[in-house]
Amino acid sequence: QVGHSKARCLCLNGLVNHIKPLHIEMLEVYTSSHSCRNMEIIVTLKNGEGKKCLNPEAPFAKKTIEKIMKNRR
Amino acid sequence: QVGHSKARCLCLNGLVNHIKPLHIEMLEVYTSSHSCRNMEIIVTLKNGEGKKCLNPEAPFAKKTIEKIMKNRR
Repeated sequence: QVGHSKARCLCLNGLVNHIKPLHIEMLEVYTSSHSCRNMEIIVTLKNGEGKKCLNPEAPFAKKTIEKIMKNRR
Repeated sequence: QVGHSKARCLCLNGLVNHIKPLHIEMLEVYTSSHSCRNMEIIVTLKNGEGKKCLNPEAPFAKKTIEKIMKNRR
């Protein structure tokens, strides 16, 4: 008997709406998929401060990504 | 005797300027750091088609990211 497969989203414990772009070491964007229907944005902070899930619905998320793109060298 | 540390960039074998947003499963943006001074954008393609490095200097890169952000559900 095969159990129902559950969604395997990564962001289960709340989303943040704001992260300072300069604090971001790495950013992962997972598009909607069979394993998780939500788009998910996971930010790895500098200085070993861990990871946060950024709310993709927050207008800030898009702005943050644009800022990161501008800070490229 | 400690050797000189070398840059540890991830994108060593050429960058692509264009990827169809719908083919993207996951996108990673690495900001400039001590281990690699370039900003790097790594795209994981759907259907196990591997990873590509997206050229952050290409205007297309920013547009691709904006499109992905719009396709969220």
